[in-house]
Amino acid sequence: MKMMIIGGGAMGLFLAAKLSQSDFDVTLCVRTKEQALALSREGLTLKDGSSSYQLPVKAKMTQEAPIEEADIIIVTVKSYSLTTLFAHLEPRLTKHQTILFMQNGMSHIELAENLAVETIGLGIMSHGAMRESETMVHHTGTGTFRWAQFKGAPDILDEVMNKIDRPGFEVYKEDDWYILLWSKLLANVCINPITALTGVRNGELLNSEELLHILREVFEEAMKLHPLPDHKEEYWKQVLQICEQTKNNQSSMLVDIRHHRQTEIESILGYVCNMAKAKHITLPMITFLYKAITEREQSFRSC
Amino acid sequence: MKMMIIGGGAMGLFLAAKLSQSDFDVTLCVRTKEQALALSREGLTLKDGSSSYQLPVKAKMTQEAPIEEADIIIVTVKSYSLTTLFAHLEPRLTKHQTILFMQNGMSHIELAENLAVETIGLGIMSHGAMRESETMVHHTGTGTFRWAQFKGAPDILDEVMNKIDRPGFEVYKEDDWYILLWSKLLANVCINPITALTGVRNGELLNSEELLHILREVFEEAMKLHPLPDHKEEYWKQVLQICEQTKNNQSSMLVDIRHHRQTEIESILGYVCNMAKAKHITLPMITFLYKAITEREQSFRSC
Repeated sequence: MKMMIIGGGAMGLFLAAKLSQSDFDVTLCVRTKEQALALSREGLTLKDGSSSYQLPVKAKMTQEAPIEEADIIIVTVKSYSLTTLFAHLEPRLTKHQTILFMQNGMSHIELAENLAVETIGLGIMSHGAMRESETMVHHTGTGTFRWAQFKGAPDILDEVMNKIDRPGFEVYKEDDWYILLWSKLLANVCINPITALTGVRNGELLNSEELLHILREVFEEAMKLHPLPDHKEEYWKQVLQICEQTKNNQSSMLVDIRHHRQTEIESILGYVCNMAKAKHITLPMITFLYKAITEREQSFRSC
Repeated sequence: MKMMIIGGGAMGLFLAAKLSQSDFDVTLCVRTKEQALALSREGLTLKDGSSSYQLPVKAKMTQEAPIEEADIIIVTVKSYSLTTLFAHLEPRLTKHQTILFMQNGMSHIELAENLAVETIGLGIMSHGAMRESETMVHHTGTGTFRWAQFKGAPDILDEVMNKIDRPGFEVYKEDDWYILLWSKLLANVCINPITALTGVRNGELLNSEELLHILREVFEEAMKLHPLPDHKEEYWKQVLQICEQTKNNQSSMLVDIRHHRQTEIESILGYVCNMAKAKHITLPMITFLYKAITEREQSFRSC
């Protein structure tokens, strides 16, 4: 079975490294010719604990990859890159292909709904992964890989997921894609903007009485839109647990801000703000954070 | 009477323009030789409404100015510049001189306490003033000039203040310098960080339901430290009034952030955070804003 992983960032490299050990014929599709050439020439290096693995990998520029030959396509690019990517990709897709979307937030759902592809899954990953160069990825924390069926027959994705499930890379299926995405969205809404604005590592949200208070305030607001509001304290424990498990990490939004890159604010807080607006619910803190991150992104233009 | 105004920013230029019409022999002391030369050559231009006034002005570099000859010194530099300024100034002061400090926040109080000068006043100004060039200042909104005695005999400062009081530049004396400074501090604590982080003009704090909610949250926290907590709703009205009166203005902190300049965060939120710490009071929102602005300032180094 032919698998194409689209995206040469931390997640794309990490999945390519992990799935190259499976039975699939994996091709990693990246945006630039330089990265495709470097990966083909040097292979992919996975740093994990004190070990380092050098793995051969097939790599192509996404534009030049034979997407139509893929049985399964795993899309790992940031959600704000999907529109550009699919403008080019969509005409080449056929309905028998299977797509797994790995984006944060919810803004990819509309795209997934409208694609003329029969089988679509949605996944989220809580492994820590940092791209150290175009050909090297560092596995900074063990997490899980969870997915849910979005549309189509379950057997195809079940088969794929069973094949990639292995010790150290456990794969879990969830029944409800909406609740699956909300579990990641909630953590992102709570942790990302506060850390991005204050520049602290995730663990500092637990150490600072004041930041923990703000975290709870954001959480309370987000839970007003959550599909399972009755499980509030259970979800609060999960958010705290993520801060603890990733205490030495910088959130992806903080990393983006520090590198003066576009953040995922639109698909995370932007989605929540729009949903609140449609439901006539006021979320002061989340709206404030949304405006502050958006202002920060705009300031990069003057740098 | 010889008056020296120290600082060639918006406030220094505005006061020099206003006080050059009084009986005083005014010298404007500025940091750079370029500005001193430009002011001596071109004079000072005051834009006010549709009028523009060209005023001759005596200007000197602060380092070269005969500070020892001044009867009254008005210090308009930002509070974070006071340490450097007074390291140079203090040895040249004599106890018979009079100083009026015009800083935001409270961090200049310690300096004022320790100066070997007999008469010290503290002032705050709510006139809108924007520096448009080294020799031009724009009066963007009519406000007031309020002052209080900090130490020394009142008659000297009373005499000076009576002389500069005139229609369009009203001067008011307050009894309690601590309450005077808190009135400005409170507005700065509430308005500056929110506008600086979200990039909105002051009036937007009234137009956005969410930002107004955050404004109130910050206000509630600040009032925990205010010397007159019983007057809460009266002060709240004042804060709203300032937002309304300055609705088209960018706060000074937003202007500083946009220009990638150091802000007055330390003397405003930093002071409040330290005071809260000493009193074992937790101020989550103010602490969060303090950290976010500090992080923003640090990011300028990577630009």
